[in-house]
Amino acid sequence: MWWKILTDYFFSFNLAADCNAVLKALQPIFQEQGMTETVHNWEDHGYLVTYIKKNGSFANLRIHPHGLVLVDLQSYNDDMKGRQEVDQLLNKVEERMKELFHGNIKRVKRLPAILRGGVIDRYWPTADGRLVEYDIDEVVYDEDSPFQNIKILHSKQFGNILILSGDVNLAESDLAYTQAIMGSGKEDYTGKEVLILGGGDGGILYEIVKLKPKMVTMVEISFDKVASSNIDQMVIDGCKKHMRKTCGDVLDNLKGECYQVLIEDCIPVLKRYAKEGRMFDYVINDLTAVPISTSPEEDSTWEFLRLILDLSMKVLKQDGKYFTQGNCINLTDALTLYEEQLSRLYCPVEFSKETVCVPSYMELYP
Amino acid sequence: MWWKILTDYFFSFNLAADCNAVLKALQPIFQEQGMTETVHNWEDHGYLVTYIKKNGSFANLRIHPHGLVLVDLQSYNDDMKGRQEVDQLLNKVEERMKELFHGNIKRVKRLPAILRGGVIDRYWPTADGRLVEYDIDEVVYDEDSPFQNIKILHSKQFGNILILSGDVNLAESDLAYTQAIMGSGKEDYTGKEVLILGGGDGGILYEIVKLKPKMVTMVEISFDKVASSNIDQMVIDGCKKHMRKTCGDVLDNLKGECYQVLIEDCIPVLKRYAKEGRMFDYVINDLTAVPISTSPEEDSTWEFLRLILDLSMKVLKQDGKYFTQGNCINLTDALTLYEEQLSRLYCPVEFSKETVCVPSYMELYP
Repeated sequence: MWWKILTDYFFSFNLAADCNAVLKALQPIFQEQGMTETVHNWEDHGYLVTYIKKNGSFANLRIHPHGLVLVDLQSYNDDMKGRQEVDQLLNKVEERMKELFHGNIKRVKRLPAILRGGVIDRYWPTADGRLVEYDIDEVVYDEDSPFQNIKILHSKQFGNILILSGDVNLAESDLAYTQAIMGSGKEDYTGKEVLILGGGDGGILYEIVKLKPKMVTMVEISFDKVASSNIDQMVIDGCKKHMRKTCGDVLDNLKGECYQVLIEDCIPVLKRYAKEGRMFDYVINDLTAVPISTSPEEDSTWEFLRLILDLSMKVLKQDGKYFTQGNCINLTDALTLYEEQLSRLYCPVEFSKETVCVPSYMELYP
Repeated sequence: MWWKILTDYFFSFNLAADCNAVLKALQPIFQEQGMTETVHNWEDHGYLVTYIKKNGSFANLRIHPHGLVLVDLQSYNDDMKGRQEVDQLLNKVEERMKELFHGNIKRVKRLPAILRGGVIDRYWPTADGRLVEYDIDEVVYDEDSPFQNIKILHSKQFGNILILSGDVNLAESDLAYTQAIMGSGKEDYTGKEVLILGGGDGGILYEIVKLKPKMVTMVEISFDKVASSNIDQMVIDGCKKHMRKTCGDVLDNLKGECYQVLIEDCIPVLKRYAKEGRMFDYVINDLTAVPISTSPEEDSTWEFLRLILDLSMKVLKQDGKYFTQGNCINLTDALTLYEEQLSRLYCPVEFSKETVCVPSYMELYP
């Protein structure tokens, strides 16, 4: 596997002459390694020096005139020896820089190596676009359904993680998410009629069935209206095999004593229920997160969300409750918009929200 | 601020001829940008092509013969326009690659930009060495005490975060940590004698004082025996100003009705208490995490930990309880060693453990 180490040295110098001094000080360290040097001098933008090794490794040394020196190494060594050599090289660079600037260095930052091109991809950005490395050690399931790519990856600390089209959906550690969307333990589901929209990982279904409801109906929509949602048969197939801590045995059959799973488009199902006057005590929408887009007029996903909301209200008993997830707490615009959508419903609703720590999301979710 | 975008294209090709085809296909895209090209051909290790722009930006195109193409861009544009240009460039590369391989690409991965050399450093690796980007938007406090560097950084979702010598210590969102180390709400502190070792952020002190204890004594050791610990006056100064959600007003004075804070080395204090026969119902050790090192014989930190443990047991009432934190759940070797240390104490102890999700740690902590 190829990896890349990024190291930053942050100084206070301001003269082109200093750029040259840095170059002169560091050159011998790379040359000792038998690396071939190519120097580019921008004059007003400092230096880029490329060092190339015979084994295919290379280093970029970027010296900026305002006092920033960046060293990037790219190597293919999956042995400890190669890693140690790189550490030694960087230690030497650090030492030399401290000598040169008499310890007057504002910041030295060495980032963990970024592993690239391996079988296992450990980098799954958060909903607000931050880089996060997971402790993935195994690809458990990796299939393309007609709607999305479905991955189940094993994390040492979170257990198996369901990733749909690149978005972290749920890990076996995330009972907190399931509990939150069920009302944080404050609801009594005994003898109740419950409708779950989405929920293909089976987590909500499994937890509610334990609470002796009258009937739980889970509708797995089966079209790709929503970019990323846990909604297809192949999600169920993957989860019932590999997310058993989340779903138990509840997905082994699509029908149980007090539950049924319909692999159907939820829109016509909701319309039919509304027409028949079939009413629920709880509707739990686990179809998708609040869309990240903040231009609802242009975005059909918002329209779709509003449609689902409207239809859900029509099948909800007078004193019924509707639960859904929000999105990453940092996407405040999207969350505010979602609250605005609530005020546009055909009937007035009251709502409250709650923030929860979902371990595998590595961010807070309202 | 300088930033770097890493993009990986992962193909299935195996011939040197294919490397050349990739090079030929992608060259025009970079040349159109007015970039100067330098090609290095390893023959058996593929190509490294460096593209340099007049404004100081540059790109590395690394083509590996086993079917991996890496594109790294380094730029200084903090405007949206620069970012959009880079996105467009990468879109073109992706398009061209899909054409060339008729869509037969195993993986395309574009990582979020890594921001470097800025005032704000957003990258704080986890205890087990994984790269994590926090949503830091402000440096609130940044001082060097005689013992360590103390940073308090503001995160949009976690509030202010205390970082000691580069290790994330506690965020204002992390009441869960404080509650866990206090016994997860199962303990009755009313009228009790409590000793806190460390705890300079004031979180534990603040929470216990609310529970009407008889007396809480917090000892802040004042030497640098432990590499990273929340133990000095400057930590207290920073926290009482900037971590008020954690510590309330409890650090405004070092003495209150039912508590006192001693800025002293805890070892002689513990020895004195042991000699005087001063006994506590609870000892809470928040001095430091379990050391990461797994060679306790060589490591004086383990010895130090054992000394603290031994002395703590001496000032603990017969039915008293000792609470401490563990470390990241992935550092299983270190945790096992810690449990072994417990069995080496001068008196036999019973212990239990619990895993908790600490929001800002982005990992599970036993």
